[in-house]
Amino acid sequence: MASALTLALDAMGGDYAPGMVVEGVAVAAPRLNGARFLLFGDKARIEPLLAAQPALAGRCEIIHTEVVVAGDEKPSQALRKGRGSSMALAIEAVKEGRAAGAVSAGNTGALMAFGMMALRTLPGIRRPAICTILPTIAGDGVTMLDLGANVECDAETLVQFAVMGEAFARTLLGIARPTVGLLNVGSEEVKGHDTVRLAAQLLRETTLPIQFKGFVEGDGISSGDFDVVVTDGFTGNIALKTAEGTAKLIGAKMKQAFSRDLWSKLTYLVAKPALDRARERFDPRRFNGAMLVGLNGIVIKSHGGMDALGFANAVEVAHRLAAADIDQRITQDLKEVAAASTGAARDNGA
Amino acid sequence: MASALTLALDAMGGDYAPGMVVEGVAVAAPRLNGARFLLFGDKARIEPLLAAQPALAGRCEIIHTEVVVAGDEKPSQALRKGRGSSMALAIEAVKEGRAAGAVSAGNTGALMAFGMMALRTLPGIRRPAICTILPTIAGDGVTMLDLGANVECDAETLVQFAVMGEAFARTLLGIARPTVGLLNVGSEEVKGHDTVRLAAQLLRETTLPIQFKGFVEGDGISSGDFDVVVTDGFTGNIALKTAEGTAKLIGAKMKQAFSRDLWSKLTYLVAKPALDRARERFDPRRFNGAMLVGLNGIVIKSHGGMDALGFANAVEVAHRLAAADIDQRITQDLKEVAAASTGAARDNGA
Repeated sequence: MASALTLALDAMGGDYAPGMVVEGVAVAAPRLNGARFLLFGDKARIEPLLAAQPALAGRCEIIHTEVVVAGDEKPSQALRKGRGSSMALAIEAVKEGRAAGAVSAGNTGALMAFGMMALRTLPGIRRPAICTILPTIAGDGVTMLDLGANVECDAETLVQFAVMGEAFARTLLGIARPTVGLLNVGSEEVKGHDTVRLAAQLLRETTLPIQFKGFVEGDGISSGDFDVVVTDGFTGNIALKTAEGTAKLIGAKMKQAFSRDLWSKLTYLVAKPALDRARERFDPRRFNGAMLVGLNGIVIKSHGGMDALGFANAVEVAHRLAAADIDQRITQDLKEVAAASTGAARDNGA
Repeated sequence: MASALTLALDAMGGDYAPGMVVEGVAVAAPRLNGARFLLFGDKARIEPLLAAQPALAGRCEIIHTEVVVAGDEKPSQALRKGRGSSMALAIEAVKEGRAAGAVSAGNTGALMAFGMMALRTLPGIRRPAICTILPTIAGDGVTMLDLGANVECDAETLVQFAVMGEAFARTLLGIARPTVGLLNVGSEEVKGHDTVRLAAQLLRETTLPIQFKGFVEGDGISSGDFDVVVTDGFTGNIALKTAEGTAKLIGAKMKQAFSRDLWSKLTYLVAKPALDRARERFDPRRFNGAMLVGLNGIVIKSHGGMDALGFANAVEVAHRLAAADIDQRITQDLKEVAAASTGAARDNGA
């Protein structure tokens, strides 16, 4: 990308908006060579926040709207009542080419609904999925989807997620032949419910150029044995949040262990640099920013409870994906996949 | 319990059986005042292992069988081919009153199938669930079910799990009025799929004496905000194993952080006692031993990959639950629940 990118931000989405949005942009901006930002939301609230960030002068434009999608609104309600909302306008900016990507910490269901309505899905893709990279023991991380966009998925949708996740890992992590696993309650073929078993059968029998490694259990997500882990949005969301909760639990118990007595407290001071290094690797803010993969356009979901540092990371993810032209790459992959299956179908039919 | 209890053990189930079973019994036995053990399995393999544990002399009896249920057998296959297997015989010993409880590290689906066939479910209970206690930040832990017995559950089954989990927490943890949450992808009423929403509605409207607190997200399992977390066996199994995987991931990253250079290694030595204290709290072996709650009899599932220390814990769980007469207590609870609903139905009908 020769010219600087423009990103569209829903300034009103998330628990701590618009404050954390403006602060997040201030954190991210210096690292995103010359990127510009469109901030959609309540001008009266955003303007004074922006004024307090002199480093952002000239890089932000506020597009005023008083409509905001509530966190508990159903997608159908959001579509009806949320026309002209900060979320909808940010996505429209992507549709109209005024922004290379949109970021919102608002209601996930509404974001997906607006994304689908305005941007539509990529050719051949039925439903977008929430996709992100999570830390692993070995390697550079695992691409996981769906993390909550679709609470129910049929087998064919899971297969499409596998295709998109594989392309995502190939593009963003630079893995030549990513391995793909389907999340299940056991690694044997007989395990799980009909949907996951059928999806596995489709992936085993497919002529798609996917390196399907079979079922992966919950503890295989972070092991590094799989580059891509595919599941429905219900299971994926619960797995993601259970992992977050476990990290918090371990942090709390460590704190207890290091504050038992004076000696423990002293050893904590000695161990602190190493502990901080380890902790930093799991800071959820570092992994904030998931893509609604499968849309014609880059839409990034930031966690609703994130602070400015977390939102800054989501903005950087949007910038990196836009700069890498992720959508065009996935589209290209899907075309090759389609060509491969057509070719295979022709071969089979001959 | 005045007299010593007898426990029935599937000596052939699990990755490291029968070695880890015999060693596990040797670890557990000294702590279980005078308990006796029936070991079901291949006498030729078990006898020399037992001979190496003089402390177990006179406390174990081997009941020979060469039939073993394989780890990848479907429940239907296991029922057909596994009559007379070490697993089936251990459960039959419970049915016939020769043992107060059974422990197996074998195939979960088969264990559930044999358990249901031999012991049947408690009055009013449709399906048993796998139930255990997991560590939490605040409080003494959370009772969670189902951890993998039923990959698909309808709303009424989830409600029954709530009743059983509540009774389990009340009996085993001594909590007077346990709070119950349904695992979901959000805390708002509109979140999740039809089944979980209907189950929540039933629990909200019920006259059962259950303190239903609504939906709980993945990170709420370990927070301590709920005493009981209810979900289907697919989601529960994946949440449990994701938590295990996250603990392993954090352990690995901590190890990396403490081995970066000589100074880090020295600080590790200083911090080791506190780190070990924290680690011990998450040792999966400490939490090994889940109950197939809802059966007429105590059947404990040990994790298939456990070593002797883990199996020992499962044996101790069986002993504790048998000594507490858990099944009779749950039955009593269910009767009260039934009486309450009948009473309420009468009141409503009047």
